[in-house]
Amino acid sequence: MESYVTGLRCAGCGHGLPVQYALSCPRCGGLLELEYDLERMAGLPRDRLSGPGIWRYAFALPVRDPAHRVSLGEGNTPLYDCPRLAEAIGVRKLWLKFEGTNPTGTVKDRTSATAVSAAREFGYKAIGVVSTGNAGSSLATYGTRAGLRTFIFCYERGSQPKLNHMAACASDLVFYRGVYDDMIGVFDRLVDEGLVFDGGASRNPFKHEGKKTIAYEVAEQLGWAVPDFFVAPVGVGETFIASYRGFRELAAMGWTAGVPRMVAAQSAVANPIVRAWREGGDLVPQRIGYTVAEGVAVGNPDAKGRYVLDILRREGGLAGDAADADIVAAQKLVARTEGIWAGPTGVVTVAVLRNLVRAGQVPSAARVVCMVTETGLKGEYPPIHPEGIVPDYEAVKKLVMARLGGFPA
Amino acid sequence: MESYVTGLRCAGCGHGLPVQYALSCPRCGGLLELEYDLERMAGLPRDRLSGPGIWRYAFALPVRDPAHRVSLGEGNTPLYDCPRLAEAIGVRKLWLKFEGTNPTGTVKDRTSATAVSAAREFGYKAIGVVSTGNAGSSLATYGTRAGLRTFIFCYERGSQPKLNHMAACASDLVFYRGVYDDMIGVFDRLVDEGLVFDGGASRNPFKHEGKKTIAYEVAEQLGWAVPDFFVAPVGVGETFIASYRGFRELAAMGWTAGVPRMVAAQSAVANPIVRAWREGGDLVPQRIGYTVAEGVAVGNPDAKGRYVLDILRREGGLAGDAADADIVAAQKLVARTEGIWAGPTGVVTVAVLRNLVRAGQVPSAARVVCMVTETGLKGEYPPIHPEGIVPDYEAVKKLVMARLGGFPA
Repeated sequence: MESYVTGLRCAGCGHGLPVQYALSCPRCGGLLELEYDLERMAGLPRDRLSGPGIWRYAFALPVRDPAHRVSLGEGNTPLYDCPRLAEAIGVRKLWLKFEGTNPTGTVKDRTSATAVSAAREFGYKAIGVVSTGNAGSSLATYGTRAGLRTFIFCYERGSQPKLNHMAACASDLVFYRGVYDDMIGVFDRLVDEGLVFDGGASRNPFKHEGKKTIAYEVAEQLGWAVPDFFVAPVGVGETFIASYRGFRELAAMGWTAGVPRMVAAQSAVANPIVRAWREGGDLVPQRIGYTVAEGVAVGNPDAKGRYVLDILRREGGLAGDAADADIVAAQKLVARTEGIWAGPTGVVTVAVLRNLVRAGQVPSAARVVCMVTETGLKGEYPPIHPEGIVPDYEAVKKLVMARLGGFPA
Repeated sequence: MESYVTGLRCAGCGHGLPVQYALSCPRCGGLLELEYDLERMAGLPRDRLSGPGIWRYAFALPVRDPAHRVSLGEGNTPLYDCPRLAEAIGVRKLWLKFEGTNPTGTVKDRTSATAVSAAREFGYKAIGVVSTGNAGSSLATYGTRAGLRTFIFCYERGSQPKLNHMAACASDLVFYRGVYDDMIGVFDRLVDEGLVFDGGASRNPFKHEGKKTIAYEVAEQLGWAVPDFFVAPVGVGETFIASYRGFRELAAMGWTAGVPRMVAAQSAVANPIVRAWREGGDLVPQRIGYTVAEGVAVGNPDAKGRYVLDILRREGGLAGDAADADIVAAQKLVARTEGIWAGPTGVVTVAVLRNLVRAGQVPSAARVVCMVTETGLKGEYPPIHPEGIVPDYEAVKKLVMARLGGFPA
């Protein structure tokens, strides 16, 4: 299917540009966003969509030449109706949008698909990113699959499962010491000189755009309807903004009746959005502490952070945070009630929803979708060293019967 | 869609039974298989299939009441066309059927779906399995999701990522010491007494059946065609036999023109099928050594093993094995050529294919599908402790330019 992209527009000053690889507004330096011919898109046959992975929604994505589109079957992730979890949390209806079934186990695969495809469209042979894990392994996977060189700049002490993954899939894995902020400065200069295509989360609108498909999928899975609340995690803000933009487009096209109330979920030790939202002021960059939710450990989300705040204020959204203990408890609750194994970053939304329900900010009659951005398989957990029982039939039978409540010995 | 199941039949003596929960032939003790009304199935609209997960093919599955069918979106996994890998291995066309996008990252989710659904259909409140990892975490996920008690009997020294996963999702995780063979004897007695529904791989035809959908998916993804060769791993033999049965049904229904040549892939230190196939005799149980491919570490596949051998001999199949070094090399090759991160068990098929091509047993003109049964995210790998570079712009730029081959310093 053809792309209906028409151009770029600055989210700050409104300046418009034709479709091109640009990372900031030439007038004001603001964030650039992609625009589409929504009027023509409205007439597309929404009940006969097809295509591999996120390219099911190729009309709403910015890669024009189908030959440039790479897919590993990302997206089309399940939307789990979770009645037991809903009851435990105290809302009428709760769905989890589980991104753990993506090829590398995280939501990042959606943006890797559009970033790598755009790199091909603009003639690049190499793509890069600075990452401690999920983004790096995802981009390495997609870049390699598309035949590009992949420069993954990785913190030397990243988590082992992710280091192994990146080491296997990246053509060029470069470890660095020091802090992310130093490396990102170096990386941005490489990008600005055109040595590698920008696979980072903060500037490139073509990369960002892949996550917009979350909104399209959720709406389609609900029969072209939207929930009352949509809870998305906020680190840099990519998932939140992209989902919101998707819901906005769908409403503008008349495919859905409106947009959900957006809820920004953060870790309590990396919560600049939540603070500004509660206190009513500007975004204040923050020196962050350790959080189990490493994917949202961002103290200065910068331009995208301000944009998130803007959406929350303009649209009557909500923001909330959760302590590490709440996040770990949410991870267990999701696993024990619904059998779904998600990582700590993935369940920040669930922990935050629980807090907001308790505080009365989300009503019990609400119908809610929580993004769950990653599988639990990529985490590092405290080792378990159990002592097993000896396989003796009578002893095991007694144990099983006692637990089942029948004929306890 | 309705199920077209008609009964059970013994794979050994041919004795038939009505549909019921039975684990062996009452006449000869042989393996039971499910049968379907293939004539009526042939008339189904194969190009308008739908339904969640593997229930897209509900007509060919044995769960009659849709209310009993549990799905977490398993199946519908990508079939990757891999031109670079095909070239490296020396075959004309190679696809990988990548099971890593299943909810728990392995092919086991297909059988967990049918096992748990059948447990509900037969009125069971608890299901169980003996497992060191993948099967246990998958069954815990599906059982919990369906509201059943899940008794997972797990070896006390299983791999950490899998222990964590099972500990989170199982209602009743019971660790044992000693060897699998001791525990499976105890477990089978619990099953025979009706305390838990059988979630194991060796006897229950309802559990086995879920993997048949692999063949249906591959055929559908190839436009209702089959490859020349289909390479499946053999531990107990469940994946191999179920795939074969699926291909047979499709051909009998006239949906495909024939069945692929089946290739049984084993680890060189756990290769009873390969030995018997090479030497022409009976299956000889084997004392196995350590292999990185822990999912196929089976020395005595017993009845299913003999069935695999039977299929190979009757249908002109092939069997091959690969040493651990070959398997690890195949894992790296798949990652570096196509960006796909699979576990060692997952790539046994690729390693074996490479050996068979080198030996001239698979011709270079062949069109081959290899099953890749698991993601790489569940493995334990040797730790990496890299020393990072200092983020200095000029140094990093020089490094990138040198690697890109432009203006080397």
